[in-house]
Amino acid sequence: MQLMNNKIYQERRNALAKQIHAKTGSGVAVISTAPEVARNRDSEFPYRHDSDFFYLTGFEEPGATLVMAVKASGKDYEVQSHLFCRPKDPEREIWDGIRLGPEAAPTVLGVEYAHSNQELDRKLGELLADQDAVYIRLAESAEADRRLRHWMKQVRGQARSGINPPSEFHDVEAFIHEMRLFKDSQEIDTMRRAAAISARAHIRAMQVCKPGIREYQLEAELLHEFRNSGAQSVAYNSIVAGGANSCILHYRAGSTELRSGDLCLIDAGCELDGYASDITRTFPVNGKFSGPQRALYDITLAAQEAAIAVAKPGNTFMQPHEAALKILTQGLLDEKLLKLSELGSLENAIETGAYRRFYMHRTSHWLGMDVHDVGSYREPTEGSSKEDKPWRILKSGMVITIEPGLYIRPADDIDEAFWNIGIRIEDDAVINSSGCELISRGVPVKADEIEAIMKHA
Amino acid sequence: MQLMNNKIYQERRNALAKQIHAKTGSGVAVISTAPEVARNRDSEFPYRHDSDFFYLTGFEEPGATLVMAVKASGKDYEVQSHLFCRPKDPEREIWDGIRLGPEAAPTVLGVEYAHSNQELDRKLGELLADQDAVYIRLAESAEADRRLRHWMKQVRGQARSGINPPSEFHDVEAFIHEMRLFKDSQEIDTMRRAAAISARAHIRAMQVCKPGIREYQLEAELLHEFRNSGAQSVAYNSIVAGGANSCILHYRAGSTELRSGDLCLIDAGCELDGYASDITRTFPVNGKFSGPQRALYDITLAAQEAAIAVAKPGNTFMQPHEAALKILTQGLLDEKLLKLSELGSLENAIETGAYRRFYMHRTSHWLGMDVHDVGSYREPTEGSSKEDKPWRILKSGMVITIEPGLYIRPADDIDEAFWNIGIRIEDDAVINSSGCELISRGVPVKADEIEAIMKHA
Amino acid sequence: MQLMNNKIYQERRNALAKQIHAKTGSGVAVISTAPEVARNRDSEFPYRHDSDFFYLTGFEEPGATLVMAVKASGKDYEVQSHLFCRPKDPEREIWDGIRLGPEAAPTVLGVEYAHSNQELDRKLGELLADQDAVYIRLAESAEADRRLRHWMKQVRGQARSGINPPSEFHDVEAFIHEMRLFKDSQEIDTMRRAAAISARAHIRAMQVCKPGIREYQLEAELLHEFRNSGAQSVAYNSIVAGGANSCILHYRAGSTELRSGDLCLIDAGCELDGYASDITRTFPVNGKFSGPQRALYDITLAAQEAAIAVAKPGNTFMQPHEAALKILTQGLLDEKLLKLSELGSLENAIETGAYRRFYMHRTSHWLGMDVHDVGSYREPTEGSSKEDKPWRILKSGMVITIEPGLYIRPADDIDEAFWNIGIRIEDDAVINSSGCELISRGVPVKADEIEAIMKHA
Amino acid sequence: MQLMNNKIYQERRNALAKQIHAKTGSGVAVISTAPEVARNRDSEFPYRHDSDFFYLTGFEEPGATLVMAVKASGKDYEVQSHLFCRPKDPEREIWDGIRLGPEAAPTVLGVEYAHSNQELDRKLGELLADQDAVYIRLAESAEADRRLRHWMKQVRGQARSGINPPSEFHDVEAFIHEMRLFKDSQEIDTMRRAAAISARAHIRAMQVCKPGIREYQLEAELLHEFRNSGAQSVAYNSIVAGGANSCILHYRAGSTELRSGDLCLIDAGCELDGYASDITRTFPVNGKFSGPQRALYDITLAAQEAAIAVAKPGNTFMQPHEAALKILTQGLLDEKLLKLSELGSLENAIETGAYRRFYMHRTSHWLGMDVHDVGSYREPTEGSSKEDKPWRILKSGMVITIEPGLYIRPADDIDEAFWNIGIRIEDDAVINSSGCELISRGVPVKADEIEAIMKHA
Ligand SMILES: [Mn+2]
Ligand SMILES: [Mn+2]
Ligand SMILES: [Mn+2]
Ligand SMILES: [Mn+2]
Repeated sequence: MQLMNNKIYQERRNALAKQIHAKTGSGVAVISTAPEVARNRDSEFPYRHDSDFFYLTGFEEPGATLVMAVKASGKDYEVQSHLFCRPKDPEREIWDGIRLGPEAAPTVLGVEYAHSNQELDRKLGELLADQDAVYIRLAESAEADRRLRHWMKQVRGQARSGINPPSEFHDVEAFIHEMRLFKDSQEIDTMRRAAAISARAHIRAMQVCKPGIREYQLEAELLHEFRNSGAQSVAYNSIVAGGANSCILHYRAGSTELRSGDLCLIDAGCELDGYASDITRTFPVNGKFSGPQRALYDITLAAQEAAIAVAKPGNTFMQPHEAALKILTQGLLDEKLLKLSELGSLENAIETGAYRRFYMHRTSHWLGMDVHDVGSYREPTEGSSKEDKPWRILKSGMVITIEPGLYIRPADDIDEAFWNIGIRIEDDAVINSSGCELISRGVPVKADEIEAIMKHA
Repeated sequence: MQLMNNKIYQERRNALAKQIHAKTGSGVAVISTAPEVARNRDSEFPYRHDSDFFYLTGFEEPGATLVMAVKASGKDYEVQSHLFCRPKDPEREIWDGIRLGPEAAPTVLGVEYAHSNQELDRKLGELLADQDAVYIRLAESAEADRRLRHWMKQVRGQARSGINPPSEFHDVEAFIHEMRLFKDSQEIDTMRRAAAISARAHIRAMQVCKPGIREYQLEAELLHEFRNSGAQSVAYNSIVAGGANSCILHYRAGSTELRSGDLCLIDAGCELDGYASDITRTFPVNGKFSGPQRALYDITLAAQEAAIAVAKPGNTFMQPHEAALKILTQGLLDEKLLKLSELGSLENAIETGAYRRFYMHRTSHWLGMDVHDVGSYREPTEGSSKEDKPWRILKSGMVITIEPGLYIRPADDIDEAFWNIGIRIEDDAVINSSGCELISRGVPVKADEIEAIMKHA
Repeated sequence: MQLMNNKIYQERRNALAKQIHAKTGSGVAVISTAPEVARNRDSEFPYRHDSDFFYLTGFEEPGATLVMAVKASGKDYEVQSHLFCRPKDPEREIWDGIRLGPEAAPTVLGVEYAHSNQELDRKLGELLADQDAVYIRLAESAEADRRLRHWMKQVRGQARSGINPPSEFHDVEAFIHEMRLFKDSQEIDTMRRAAAISARAHIRAMQVCKPGIREYQLEAELLHEFRNSGAQSVAYNSIVAGGANSCILHYRAGSTELRSGDLCLIDAGCELDGYASDITRTFPVNGKFSGPQRALYDITLAAQEAAIAVAKPGNTFMQPHEAALKILTQGLLDEKLLKLSELGSLENAIETGAYRRFYMHRTSHWLGMDVHDVGSYREPTEGSSKEDKPWRILKSGMVITIEPGLYIRPADDIDEAFWNIGIRIEDDAVINSSGCELISRGVPVKADEIEAIMKHA
Repeated sequence: MQLMNNKIYQERRNALAKQIHAKTGSGVAVISTAPEVARNRDSEFPYRHDSDFFYLTGFEEPGATLVMAVKASGKDYEVQSHLFCRPKDPEREIWDGIRLGPEAAPTVLGVEYAHSNQELDRKLGELLADQDAVYIRLAESAEADRRLRHWMKQVRGQARSGINPPSEFHDVEAFIHEMRLFKDSQEIDTMRRAAAISARAHIRAMQVCKPGIREYQLEAELLHEFRNSGAQSVAYNSIVAGGANSCILHYRAGSTELRSGDLCLIDAGCELDGYASDITRTFPVNGKFSGPQRALYDITLAAQEAAIAVAKPGNTFMQPHEAALKILTQGLLDEKLLKLSELGSLENAIETGAYRRFYMHRTSHWLGMDVHDVGSYREPTEGSSKEDKPWRILKSGMVITIEPGLYIRPADDIDEAFWNIGIRIEDDAVINSSGCELISRGVPVKADEIEAIMKHA
């Protein structure tokens, strides 16, 4: 991966330091990257860094920890960043690849200090001494808690020489996640490129699709397009779901043969340079929507369009969902999948949650380094209780998905023509000053256009 | 143990709540009592409650946790205390004794709510929901961390319904320990009674002492006096050290036979109703100090008196130590145990730490519920580093020990007449408005008085 | 404590090695002593070694581990014992007392090798390499499991150089506990001395008892006699229970005032040189049994005598209990506390467990280093299921308590004259070739004798 | 994945039961499958079952545990298998996919009993009661140890009712791994199909390769061929290494541009139906080996052929390595990369390990469900020490890789023409009655054939 200019990461660290200073004057932040995890025996899953750690350092190697010491000085403050990373080791590097090493890290990453990660436990005993506030991930894993106890034991052991151990611990994620909620122009640029790759992959899958092909063969097209375009990974396990499988929300691509007359739902996106894309398209295996399929497809698309229309600054995170819900529920009533006679009105069908039988998920989630990206869905109004907290107001730089769907499982009270129709249409929207930019529309979404693409394959 | 009026505990909880409110507006404090611990196989050590927990509740049973929910309301706040305790269980109570039980707890202890401790994990999931700040013991034990992770997992699992997990954790001990540093009149009264019992025990040991008796026999006298007077326990393992043993600082009473010509050092105090006493006396086994013994004894006593003279409000915690040090070091020079010819001056003997060969501990520690009681030895000046933090200023209501000593181990460069002389004189001092009150002087401290007591035994 | 000749411990280690050899040819046994445990803050409970560890080493210091390497050599085997203990450290020894140290350990303890305990983790990696079988405590504590994982990780890390990690783990306790079930003559001698001390303490408590005295004052007498006689500790927390308290089985001495007309039940025994004694006596506070008290007392004593009569080699562990049960239940029927009209017969009263309302514990337990000593209560017949396993056959060298009791709590259907009578009579019996020796009868047990002793106080 | 006939798994369980019976008569085996692991935030890595668990059950869902109770009955034994798996749950299955559930498991999987995995902790308390021997993974993870302690605590808690807890624990892996070392005909058939897919993928990569292409683009070809052929995953992270990268043994495909004149080394294999393939080929980026490249390539290939020639029953696992080593070292001497003048002789160059500078890994490893498959590399001769244990004798049904290589990093004493040449040639060999079958030769290995294939791309 191409390192972005390390100035960006320095600015992010400074922004975090500023928040720490505002909260407690001085403080020490500790953020470790993700561990390597075994798949089977001594074979490991492809390594993925921790998003928060990467956000602050741009550093992708395992075995690393960032420690930021913020020191108040008058009304101002100073910040010094220490990176702990794997030491250079010629023998190990022949086997496992080149390491940056603590000697090169300050220049490459722009941190003030770098140390071997074997120094971490010892140095933390020093860095936490006489510090009141620690910013760290709290109560998350037995291993992380064990390390923290070890560091604290060192500091507490110096109590008789008048050294005070830290007395307050803040969830460092809360601060970083609020920052990550707002993407800068370089992040948005990367996300645009990721979405463009994913869009091309969806087109390839549509074009190669035909009755008799298997789900995994369409997944092969996606994987090829992703990797051939330089994406390092999928952003999440690809869903390629034919027929009844389309009604299982997190179905993975399997070996089901796709049959003429069925729909195929693909929810797949690549991860490029640490950023996710997330696109869903649904199309007819034989290239032509049936009547009921087309009816429900058009409802879903109309719901998406309604949601897109209100995805703009000043509206809340919930408004796109509410807009989509109205269209979807009206559509279900129109198609008699919900009975107006029983429900009385559209409002009631929504209020009672009657639609949940066919639409059981939300319309949006944050998108960014993580596919279900971080950031509170409520406004950060301190001290108020859950009921009082308003939904988050959308602002420029936020990125959300917009993904309404309809899922009709077989049932006695449902017209058989609708059975096993699972539809979801998902695009990625960057909130901007006037509304939103759909960055994933490199793949068509209208039913006619999909049919056209599949014909010309 | 006689419960004090539960108003006292209510006031302490309110004082803690006030500090929580001042720090973070709202917050939840969680304080558990100590676990029961096995001695050998299914036999347990006598149960001892946690001092902090007892300070806030007056409750002595094991298996209990106090949860205080402080809720800001405008500029003011409300506090609700929940006690989790062992449920009533007729079968278990036949075996292990009567339990208070959650039904009776609110009336007896003055808490707003009480629950079975089997509800703790479930209820904490509720009580921590949408709370920003938690006040708890931090990074102390694997078991406590495991429980906290369990509670946080419950709260975090509700994130999708808009519930926020706590984001900052404060060391609840820091707040409680600052409170415990200042003893109220009831606490001081209990400590006076504890010290009086311990003083009587020391007198008994002196009186029963004679050449040929063993250390454990003197310990038997102490134990009898403590328990016969209603003390529940020793405040720490009794030191009864004859001859060379007197130079091992934390020696325990063993089976050494006491010999004429040797000294015997006893450092022992009872724990009464949860409060410690801590007295040391040193006396000649045969009832008569030898010349060198008497010389060093008088130096030590003079050092203690000098320390006592400056143990008063406005002076720092370190001043008694410095005063004692001066006398002790001058005495060592006078007795030629330190060589003026080598050290040049008293000041230099102190500055270079030359005295540490014969006096290697501090002169004072806090005394209270714990024998080495809690409370920072530095002034709580926020944000400054260790070097800047001044020593604590003594104030009315603080309780310290004053315990200078001299310990002469055999060595080629030491006159044999001084070998194996270990002396410590320790009394318990309550700082009051004008100076300090010595509450442990029920046992005499002057060499002549000790000899007189031993003669009349 | 006076070390017994270290030959005894060497022989015990050899006996364990023999069992290991019989089971798996070669093998490594790892047995650690007990940890030190905190009471409150930095104050610790008096240290108690682990009984199994002490049984094999005679070593009382904390921080020690015994590793025995048994190596088959033809049909025979060799055994080498490694002791890991605290290293000598002049600085620490001034504070905490003299340490034996690894240099002196082989001579003093008769082990082949001794090492600093800081070498334990490293050396275990060597000692466990290429060993199939490990004898250790299994699945007992998170800390012990953590250490074992650490050692195994070291051995497994050498797999590529052809070293095999251990593949079977045996519960070392099972082997040691079978040995400890049979006391040798030195052990029995120590237990006789312990019981004699405890008996004297019971007499003192009876003699000092009078209406108005408090429970803790009687406990003070016990403590004094125990410690004055050289006992290091109580073998368990002393029960001194007046009136209604006598019906709570594990009641501890409290501050209840003893009243004329009530009984006082004392269950207390000292621990001498690592061995427990366990005696219970019940006596009238005013020195004279009331009619109902005397009636129930005599029943209980008769039950004990019946149990004693069958406590002999060849009988099972359960036979004394059954004998006592018959007498107790007949007594309850005679006194109308159980109704013959309802129960039909003695046999039925026993079979239905009707007696359990008044006698809810067993009559005996093993006694030894631990008060509830180790050793299976079933014959060690391999492979059979619980139902098939016969109760242990008593043999010479086993030590049991014999402690029938009756506990009458207030209830509407009980004659008020019996309310709050709790009686237990407990003696310690060493099984010998012809029957058993009661080693705790230094304190009288007959009602008349008790009354006589209390009168002459 | 197509389930094989469940008879196969039943037979494997019976074979394991037979070994358990032979070792300890009765016993209980506990084998859990792998946990699901998070990649980033709530996104998970594709689930991979545990190989041992799958080997015994053919069951791929997460959250499952197999418990086998072997009960001796006379000289014979019975075995009952219990599968604990995720319970049916319509709500969760809409989200996460269909579950087999305990109701259907006995029929589908051929186990005697199946239970919800929520019953595991409770049932284990029953299944381990009065069992002497447990077969389990030992000292592997804190979580597994925690569960075992929980189960043991339940069993130990029943000790007073005469139930004995298990007293020996055997490493269940040792037994299963010995079985897995020998592949049956169905396993070999699956491995043949996996190797055939991987071979086709290598051909595609060669054919698409040309100067200017990037490593990840070749990886895209591999991924497509694997998945399009129905393989579920890679068996390990693919190595696509251009130029200097070829000298880093575990280099992963990155974004390096491949340059004319450089070599490209690809080490990649798919996992099909739970079985790995493992192929390495090295080829010139521009389709034509240079002189030095060709020279070293031919040496490596000759080394592989020499190793293949001795990969046959009766020879040891080490003989192919030794054969390859001889050719490689002679080649290094011939090419003057090693100096005969310094080393004296081929034998000495081998003995001193001089070749290790250019060839630092072994020639073979077991291949099977895991890419570095299980099974001891030494003959299982009990009781002997490492030095005595002979290398494993190859037998029909074993599968090994044969993968010699040469890696020349830049250095002053090396002719520049050889710099950055990294070559490895790896094929998969099934040992059969007469020698071995190379199942991965669907992709050519001779230099001329590779050049031919690349020309006709
Ligand atoms: Mn999505
Ligand atoms: Mn003190
Ligand atoms: Mn007993
Ligand atoms: Mn390989």
